[in-house]
Amino acid sequence: MKTSIGPRAIIQPNPVLIVGSYDQYDRPNIMAVAWGGICCSKPPCAAISLRQATYTYGSIRHSNAFTINIPSTSFVREADYVGIYSGKKEDKFNSLGLTPVKSDVVNAPYVKEFPVVLECEVLKVVEIGLHTQFIGEIKDIKADENILAENGLPDIGKLQPFIYNSAGQNYYALGDFLGKAYTIGRKE
Amino acid sequence: MKTSIGPRAIIQPNPVLIVGSYDQYDRPNIMAVAWGGICCSKPPCAAISLRQATYTYGSIRHSNAFTINIPSTSFVREADYVGIYSGKKEDKFNSLGLTPVKSDVVNAPYVKEFPVVLECEVLKVVEIGLHTQFIGEIKDIKADENILAENGLPDIGKLQPFIYNSAGQNYYALGDFLGKAYTIGRKE
Repeated sequence: MKTSIGPRAIIQPNPVLIVGSYDQYDRPNIMAVAWGGICCSKPPCAAISLRQATYTYGSIRHSNAFTINIPSTSFVREADYVGIYSGKKEDKFNSLGLTPVKSDVVNAPYVKEFPVVLECEVLKVVEIGLHTQFIGEIKDIKADENILAENGLPDIGKLQPFIYNSAGQNYYALGDFLGKAYTIGRKE
Repeated sequence: MKTSIGPRAIIQPNPVLIVGSYDQYDRPNIMAVAWGGICCSKPPCAAISLRQATYTYGSIRHSNAFTINIPSTSFVREADYVGIYSGKKEDKFNSLGLTPVKSDVVNAPYVKEFPVVLECEVLKVVEIGLHTQFIGEIKDIKADENILAENGLPDIGKLQPFIYNSAGQNYYALGDFLGKAYTIGRKE
């Protein structure tokens, strides 16, 4: 028997997306985005949802570009810091000892120390409610060589991304391998 | 030093979202959606991206509603099956021995055996490219009582959702607790 818990914004799990942008003074900034993910395969696009009150909202409106950086588990404290403090008041790259690198394909900075970055140009802006969704076309992905799999794509076991659980407001690591997709469910 | 891997649709990790809908004959169907997640807190909304070629695309266009069902790790084979075979050709609920339940708030069925379901009414349809994004307002969430935490919301440790890794086409379980959000990153 299921219990109604009301209309709430809960899906478990969420990825941890650290969004990089330049503000109107070309200063690099990063924020943590809880709501986002891939939204189209062709062209490859990622969506992030921001409140207008965030500093990054104005920056993306100004620059029309952003990066999505995926941190490894070793950066969980840095990711949480990025989600607590605002770029209005401080240079978070500097506070955390992280290095901003200017993307060579879009007008946005990425985090050198994080293993994977998606470089996105704004394709659509969707007003939903408290959050505005920015749909960015992924112009390139850059990744540290040591986390690539044999197929040339990021190996999730080497990347060790972590998970944000909005319902409990906490973080979890990646667990055990469960099986191959499009394989374990096949009819015999 | 980062390597360019080109423009690709990769964010790690992705949730596993099993989308329920009625077709034009009011037959219940489920599909697996790789691209989706929460996209707004107020009103609470979830986005799913579908190709027009999918059977569910036509169903949601017809019914204007869908459910997002979150399976536990024990249902990884069922979830993979749902992602392989089309509702055009078979009744997947019947094939898998799962039970469709008609939502009491939207015109869509959910999976009784899966522990959490979001009941969504289409709020916006965003044409992106190969994928169309359906933004659904979450009218209610229903959950099995035995997976609720003390705060009345789904406990991710009890739910045991799993993860889809699109770059490697495989599934992973939830791992270790890493820390409290808005806490472990605070300045001392």
